[in-house]
Order: sequence, then structure tokens, then C-alpha cells
Amino acid sequence: MPSAPEFRWFAEFERVGVEQRVTIRDLLYEGDTGFQHIRVLDSIPFGRILVLDIAIQTTEADEFIYHEMIVHPALIALERPERVLIIGGGDGGCLRRVLEHPVQRAVMVEIDAEVVEVCRRYLPTIAGDAFADPRAELIIADGYQYVRETPERFDAIIVDCTDPWPPGPSQTLFSLDFYRAVAAVLKDEGIMVTQASSPLYLLPEVQMIHHQLGRAFPQVGIYLAAVPSYPGTLWAFAFGGKGNNPAALPPAEVERRLRQRRIQAHYYRPQVHSAAFCLPAFLVRALADRQFRPQRYHLPVRYDLLLNPPA
Amino acid sequence: MPSAPEFRWFAEFERVGVEQRVTIRDLLYEGDTGFQHIRVLDSIPFGRILVLDIAIQTTEADEFIYHEMIVHPALIALERPERVLIIGGGDGGCLRRVLEHPVQRAVMVEIDAEVVEVCRRYLPTIAGDAFADPRAELIIADGYQYVRETPERFDAIIVDCTDPWPPGPSQTLFSLDFYRAVAAVLKDEGIMVTQASSPLYLLPEVQMIHHQLGRAFPQVGIYLAAVPSYPGTLWAFAFGGKGNNPAALPPAEVERRLRQRRIQAHYYRPQVHSAAFCLPAFLVRALADRQFRPQRYHLPVRYDLLLNPPA
Repeated sequence: MPSAPEFRWFAEFERVGVEQRVTIRDLLYEGDTGFQHIRVLDSIPFGRILVLDIAIQTTEADEFIYHEMIVHPALIALERPERVLIIGGGDGGCLRRVLEHPVQRAVMVEIDAEVVEVCRRYLPTIAGDAFADPRAELIIADGYQYVRETPERFDAIIVDCTDPWPPGPSQTLFSLDFYRAVAAVLKDEGIMVTQASSPLYLLPEVQMIHHQLGRAFPQVGIYLAAVPSYPGTLWAFAFGGKGNNPAALPPAEVERRLRQRRIQAHYYRPQVHSAAFCLPAFLVRALADRQFRPQRYHLPVRYDLLLNPPA
Repeated sequence: MPSAPEFRWFAEFERVGVEQRVTIRDLLYEGDTGFQHIRVLDSIPFGRILVLDIAIQTTEADEFIYHEMIVHPALIALERPERVLIIGGGDGGCLRRVLEHPVQRAVMVEIDAEVVEVCRRYLPTIAGDAFADPRAELIIADGYQYVRETPERFDAIIVDCTDPWPPGPSQTLFSLDFYRAVAAVLKDEGIMVTQASSPLYLLPEVQMIHHQLGRAFPQVGIYLAAVPSYPGTLWAFAFGGKGNNPAALPPAEVERRLRQRRIQAHYYRPQVHSAAFCLPAFLVRALADRQFRPQRYHLPVRYDLLLNPPA
């Protein structure tokens, strides 16, 4: 730590009475893009942090956890992942992990060119050399429109976007219409993955995403990873598939494919692949709950489920 | 939420630049016991919270996660858990889960009688009827001394104590001497479990506990659970055994025993049993790291491992 630091705090808006505050050394960049407000902060615990509107998107310290876990489980479940589409993911962290697999083509559709530019300038380690890879194509466009219009078919579609609430440029990316459009451009063995909010602090968002995905895909599931810079640390990812279920892939096969593809990860490993799909009992119940009411979605959650665990 | 609340914040001391703040409605109790400072707070997110010195010990909302996960993995791994010793655990949450198993006797040795009294008065739902169970014996004594002097032999020993740092009444419960004394009173198939700090924010504590346990037991391991009221949510537990390794128990056998014992848990389930022992790659590396230096233990951790993931 510097000897005479000028500390400040950054906190996302408080959720159900819990606030995670992060010590900030400096504000490196701030701007409005027309889509959203961007800040790059330099922090003590997480190094540089990308904040879009009010929410931490990624940090130098723990980006590897989020990006490995949004990409590797789906791509490892594909024997031959040839064409991959990334929606969002402006920092390039998803693209970099996708390109670790033997893909022929990775298309990244990001709505906000300024996010890409700011990340390239202030957070260059997240993308590494990914944007220079000849297999990668960056398209600045609305991902929802792109999916509806592209004639291409994909083996995997990774949705790395901002949260559904408060309203931002990603709102359409959590709609049933979008999931159905994704299903239409996904090959039969293909898998889509989306970040799916906090099972501890924003449970209704996880329930909604799981429920809507289940209306668009025959195979659907939630898996978890611990991303310390996100509210509540524990973070959910949701997958949808037409027949392929990544949860069913045995660790020995994950290990074989990781070795074959020469992928060295720092959070993801064969045992983590299987473990991530093993949900706590209360979450299994919440996902099966027929009482799901979408109108609860914007309300603060008072930990009802945790305070009143099922009898 | 009340319409005119008088909100205040409670935060544990900041760790490596991250602070989790909790909205408090009321201070229900405050006192000094000679061993430690006790507070019972009423909070928005977690209901009532027990704070010892500066750290949240347990809350009404998420006590079930911590207590299920410190008790069930070890007790399920025992075919016939007859005699169980709990060190600490003044709130009674461990005792209650231990008594869900077909034990003949559960001895709880808590150093601080006032913690037991305050919890019985302000947090009665945590223990439920456990203290009234004829199989339970509460002894107010120093757990370290008790383990050194008891002629009894146990199938399981659960150490549910405060953190090793800052210094408090539990410091001796993280020493090699204590672990060796525990090994001496543990039956051959027996298992000990201790809470083992935060793998994200206090990694050197986890490393130290794992390392010291490995000097006292041939079988040793770390497993994880998400306890939202604890710093960083992700929490580590460490086990030691002479031959019995709970990680090796297949989910089908966990399921059989849970059903046989008629245990209904809200976080723990057969899949969670196995998944909890599957550690992220960086943690596997940290536990195997020969460079472990105990003198780093009191230093703030700057996320060195996360910021510089292994090549």
C-alpha cells in the first residue's frame, strides 16, 4: 500500500440492506457513452475496476473467475466448438477465453464501442491479444438485433452483459423473445450461457432468468461461481441447450479436453465444472417454485427464503 | 421494511480494502463477558445478528448454512456417530444439527457462559430445543483444557469458534498442540472439523489451518460454503481424520444416510456434500504451496494470488 494514500470508497447501491464498499485510490476515467456511464477506478483490493452506470462489471483481480466460468463450462461441453458468438463482453475477457478453445471463428457483438476502447486503454490485460486474433471479429451493434438477423449458426452463444435491473442497454437480453431468437441461431448441439445475477441478493432475477430460459430451451440449468467483486460474491450463470447438457459431462472428460486444448485455468478445473452445477437445497427449491411471480422482480428481496427456510 | 426506520450501519473492520456494511435497525443487547464483547443487533438483511468483539458470528437468516455445513459433512461420513464433542458453538446451532444424527451423546464445551445465555434469550431459534435434549451436555470450560484432560473418546469433534485473528478466546484452538490433543481423543474412524476462515480475504489463515492440521492428521482437507453474512461470503471449513475422508463419500451414500436419519437440510444435500470439497484451481495451488510462510499470517493480503494468477 502507498505510504500516504488518499483513500475513497466505492459502493454499488445497497441491496436489501447489504453494501460492499471497496477502497479506491483513483478515478482513472469517467465518461458518458450515450448508452451508459463508464468509470475506471483504481482500487486497493481488486486493482482496476470497470464500472458501468452503478455496477462493477469486472476487475483486474477477479476477472479470471467470471470469464473462465462464463466460457469454459459450455465450450468444454462441445466436442468441436467451431463458431462462437459473444453478446456484450466489451472488455474482451470472454473473447480471450473463447479463443483458448479450437474455434474457427468468434464473433463479438458489443453495443457500446466506447466500452471496448476504454477497456483496451485502461484494462488491457483482460483481453490480452484476443482482438488481434484473426479468428475474432468485433461488431459494434445491438446484440438482440444481430441475433434476429444473422444467417449464421453458432455452436455456443455467450451473453456477457450488464444486469437486467436497473434498466440499461441489456434489458432486452433477458427477454423470452431474445432467448427464442438465440435458440433459432444455435446449432442442435449448441449451448447458450448468460450471466444470471446473484442467488443470494437478487434471487428473483435468477428465478426469472431460469424460468424464461426454460420456455426457450429443453435443457436449462444454473451454475455458480464465487466472484468477490460482485454483490454477495456467489454469482449465477444460466445455460440453455437443445440437447447438450454441460452438467452431465464427467470430470474425466473435462480433464481430457482441457489437456487436449492446452487450457490452463486459474479457477476452472474438472472438479469445479461438476461442482458448479450442484446447487444448495434452498436454490433448488427456489428454481422449482411454481409460485414464481414476475411482478416481484423489481422489489427488494428481504431474504424471505433464507429467513424462512422450507420446513 | 418499516415506514420510518432509524437505519444505522454495522461493518466488521475492513479487510484488504473491502468492507461489508449491514443495515441495522436496533441494538438489542450489549455487554462485556470478561472473555469478549457481545452485541446482538437487529438487521434488515439477516434478522438478528450475534457479534463477538468485532466479528459477525451468526445470524438468524443464514445460520442454517454455516451450521449445516460445519456439522453434516463429517457426521454423514460416520456410519455410527455415537459420541460428538463440540468446542465453542455457544449459540447452539451446531448442537442442534449434531442431535439430528443418531448420536448417543453430544458434549458442548463453551468457554463463555454469557454467550450461551444471550443466545438463548435473543436468538432462541438457532438452538431450538437442543439444550433440552437428554443426549446433550453443556460444559462451561476452556475447550483446549477439556480436550487435554478428558478420558472420553469421540467419533466427531466440531470446533465452532471465533477467528484466529484478531486475538481472542479461540487463539489456542488454531494451534498445532490443540490439533494433536484433538487427534488423541478422536477414535480411529473419527473426524474433526473446524471453521477455517475466508479463502478470498484471509487466505493465509486458511493456508495456516490446513498446514497445521496436516501435521496432526493423515487425512486433511478444505471444503467451502457460501455464508452471506461472513466477509467475502465464501467460507472455508477444514477437516482432519486418521483414515476417514468425508470427501470420498459418494453422493448416493450421503443420500441414503440422510434419508435413514430423516435429516431435512436447507443448504446441505448429497450433491453439495461432494461439490463443497471441489476447490477452485487457485486455492488448490495455495494449499499445496511450499512457500507458505506463517509470518505473512498477520499481514493484510493484497489479493496477490488473485492479481497474479499462476502462469
